Amino acid sequence: MAPSPTIIPIIMAGGAGSRLWPLSRDTMPKQFIELFDDGLSAFQATLRRVVGEGFGRPIVVTNNDFRFIAAEQLSRLGIEAEIVLEPERRDSAAAVAVGAVLAERLGTGGVCLLLASDHVIRDEAGFLDAVRKAATVAATGRIMTLGITPDHASTAYGYIHPGADDLGEGARSIERFVEKPDRATAEGYVAEGYVWNSGNFAFSAEVMLKELEHFTPNVLAAAREAAEKATRDLDFIRLDAAAFSASPTISIDYAVMEKTRLGGVLAAEFGWSDIGSWDSLHAVKDKDANGNRLEGDVVAIDTRNSFVRSEEALTTVLGLDDVVVVTTHDAVLVSSMAAAPKVKTLVAELKKAGRREAGEHMRIHRPWGWYQRIDIGDRFQVKHICVKPGGRLSLQRHHHRAEHWVVVHGTAEVTIDGSTKFYHENEAAYLPIGCIHRLHNPGKIDLKLIEVQVGSYTGEDDIVRIEDVYARS
Amino acid sequence: MAPSPTIIPIIMAGGAGSRLWPLSRDTMPKQFIELFDDGLSAFQATLRRVVGEGFGRPIVVTNNDFRFIAAEQLSRLGIEAEIVLEPERRDSAAAVAVGAVLAERLGTGGVCLLLASDHVIRDEAGFLDAVRKAATVAATGRIMTLGITPDHASTAYGYIHPGADDLGEGARSIERFVEKPDRATAEGYVAEGYVWNSGNFAFSAEVMLKELEHFTPNVLAAAREAAEKATRDLDFIRLDAAAFSASPTISIDYAVMEKTRLGGVLAAEFGWSDIGSWDSLHAVKDKDANGNRLEGDVVAIDTRNSFVRSEEALTTVLGLDDVVVVTTHDAVLVSSMAAAPKVKTLVAELKKAGRREAGEHMRIHRPWGWYQRIDIGDRFQVKHICVKPGGRLSLQRHHHRAEHWVVVHGTAEVTIDGSTKFYHENEAAYLPIGCIHRLHNPGKIDLKLIEVQVGSYTGEDDIVRIEDVYARS
Repeated sequence: MAPSPTIIPIIMAGGAGSRLWPLSRDTMPKQFIELFDDGLSAFQATLRRVVGEGFGRPIVVTNNDFRFIAAEQLSRLGIEAEIVLEPERRDSAAAVAVGAVLAERLGTGGVCLLLASDHVIRDEAGFLDAVRKAATVAATGRIMTLGITPDHASTAYGYIHPGADDLGEGARSIERFVEKPDRATAEGYVAEGYVWNSGNFAFSAEVMLKELEHFTPNVLAAAREAAEKATRDLDFIRLDAAAFSASPTISIDYAVMEKTRLGGVLAAEFGWSDIGSWDSLHAVKDKDANGNRLEGDVVAIDTRNSFVRSEEALTTVLGLDDVVVVTTHDAVLVSSMAAAPKVKTLVAELKKAGRREAGEHMRIHRPWGWYQRIDIGDRFQVKHICVKPGGRLSLQRHHHRAEHWVVVHGTAEVTIDGSTKFYHENEAAYLPIGCIHRLHNPGKIDLKLIEVQVGSYTGEDDIVRIEDVYARS
Repeated sequence: MAPSPTIIPIIMAGGAGSRLWPLSRDTMPKQFIELFDDGLSAFQATLRRVVGEGFGRPIVVTNNDFRFIAAEQLSRLGIEAEIVLEPERRDSAAAVAVGAVLAERLGTGGVCLLLASDHVIRDEAGFLDAVRKAATVAATGRIMTLGITPDHASTAYGYIHPGADDLGEGARSIERFVEKPDRATAEGYVAEGYVWNSGNFAFSAEVMLKELEHFTPNVLAAAREAAEKATRDLDFIRLDAAAFSASPTISIDYAVMEKTRLGGVLAAEFGWSDIGSWDSLHAVKDKDANGNRLEGDVVAIDTRNSFVRSEEALTTVLGLDDVVVVTTHDAVLVSSMAAAPKVKTLVAELKKAGRREAGEHMRIHRPWGWYQRIDIGDRFQVKHICVKPGGRLSLQRHHHRAEHWVVVHGTAEVTIDGSTKFYHENEAAYLPIGCIHRLHNPGKIDLKLIEVQVGSYTGEDDIVRIEDVYARS
């Protein structure tokens, strides 16, 4: 066996999937949520798999909106990475191009390993074995796809028909890619030895750049220019917005993989799922004797083969089989297991109707911590605010509301119109309408406070930011 | 037709049914909840039906726990009634006995009309017609049951087999009472002309007392003594607890109706339902073209014949038929329509497990208004408090918590350690641990405030009541 080349992980973490709604939403998509009881998001689990011996410094390609979440989740693991910010969504070809451009610039040589950040892999050793084999073949000039040997005739995945050529390491050439099939077609594919297209790839930057140049030069040109004009902003590499937005929106499958003659596929099994909907999440989870997976404060009676998850409310299910029930603070989903893939359509309809819940969580994450509305009424709103140690909100003012802050945990440093005071647990500060104020946690533990806003308008857009340490003003 | 006698309505409003959980709970049972869009609870609708021409002052028999709710709902309708408080639950025989004893004492003569307060009646004219006929027969010495001509072979109701004797007004004697049957038996009953036992009766107090004396003297003795020793407390007749608790717990059906030879039944149809479970509520509600009844913030896709009600959260249902989904702030029920009658069992299990949500709502009603917890954490709790105009909380102190009150609507009169001050919208009061304090709404509109409690223990039982205008200390 050839010695494995150094592998540069490129992690795609810019998606805003809605198929696990209401848990996953645009402001906190599924790759950043803890979906298992392991204390890790799928994004974190993905990264943890590809650190250490044989792996180079990872490149995370994510959306500007997720920069603080990604940075915090990496920092919690103690993993350092290049965090590349896409100013807007341009599908996978642009992200691959940016990753390949940056890998080339880093000049480390080796092989790029392009991974989705929202997949589940249960057999880590099997995964690493497959990765090393794919990388070895990729080093010979192939663009390798990780193919998954099907364990059922899924209609949720695209398939790859392996070709006749043996590429070594058990890899094969690619005869063709096929779209998600219907059930009967899927059964045919499985019988004929097709494998699932996992959307994870290994390639040398050089080869990928050449193929992008050949098949989709616009994408590559946009990526090159966006990377050249990129700016460092805090710890982020911020791609140039004008240049990046010139890229066509196209997937790497359409742009390159279905056209290149350099494609290859390594079929493997490593307990993989793209957890693309609630039914597939249910499928990969451990279940009780009734086939149920119950998470959180849940009571189920006369219920089988169901997935029930509660974030907060006592959630009860009675006399139902094959259902998905997910309850969150502000939105509830009740679906048949079979209809679960249609959640995407439901969310699209909610968005069309202008529903906040379609895309936003109640708990809004900010670089300094988070806040959550706990009550709202005519002329008032109440929020729970949590500021991380060292966190500092922007210097700001409001035109339409006064605020009362009651510290319930930790210590607050509050600046009001130039004068700074410390407030401890059980102390309250008053911020009159129009005052210029700032909140900072100078301590070593979380600062928690209850904010009561009173005024004629309590919308989030009544914030005039005067100065901000997170470069948001 | 004989002239109708004066009718004294006796309204049974002491039940704490759990079969419409999580909407109906022990602290706010279904008779007091607005279940239709008419701005009325079933209790209010029941009373409104029996005021005016031909009806005397109603007697409401309810539980001590519900006295303020009942009084407030009556007052909103401008209906005056005797409100009789049962110190504990003793089933219907005791309530009937108390009602008959009081009706006798009022000495108005006439006929008692005993009505459940949690039934739905859609044809009011038909109901009043049946009541007048039943009362006319009751005046001749019969204990009349309102029987309902079945429109389907329900297994949820007890049946009455009418006897051969014609009692006039279309009424018949009673051959026998039968328990809730299985489906096949129910079909037989319907074919043979049995009618549903609605649990509503008409009788003269004198006759009922004589039958109680004969068949269940313990119940009557307890009721007589409890009424004799009753005290007036504010506007309530508070039955003597020791005397009342001596009564056996037994239904009027078992105690008297199945034994007496004076029973009679008037079969009628007036769009009646006892709304004993979610499926029966669904049955009496108007539905859309898909057979769905959607209430509150609900979106349903590919869903049929379902009842979905949201109190607060956006509630979505996808690809399911024949389900009941009820979401409240702190508890969610998802059930098949067929299993809906089993909600009672579910609630019993929750109670056994010591779950607060089984019996208590988040919003706790008090004679002065209500409060609702909106957040809780380690060493703090946040409540939204609403005090009605004129409402006055007890003079109290806490040993383990300080409180911050921010007024967000109306005006508060706050007394702290003997000193009284007014607080208006956007003003905050601080109540240190151990201070003796009182909150009063001196204004003409609701007072709303956000209370932030901070301390080592924030349980509801850390209240030392020093003085209370509602006689609760």
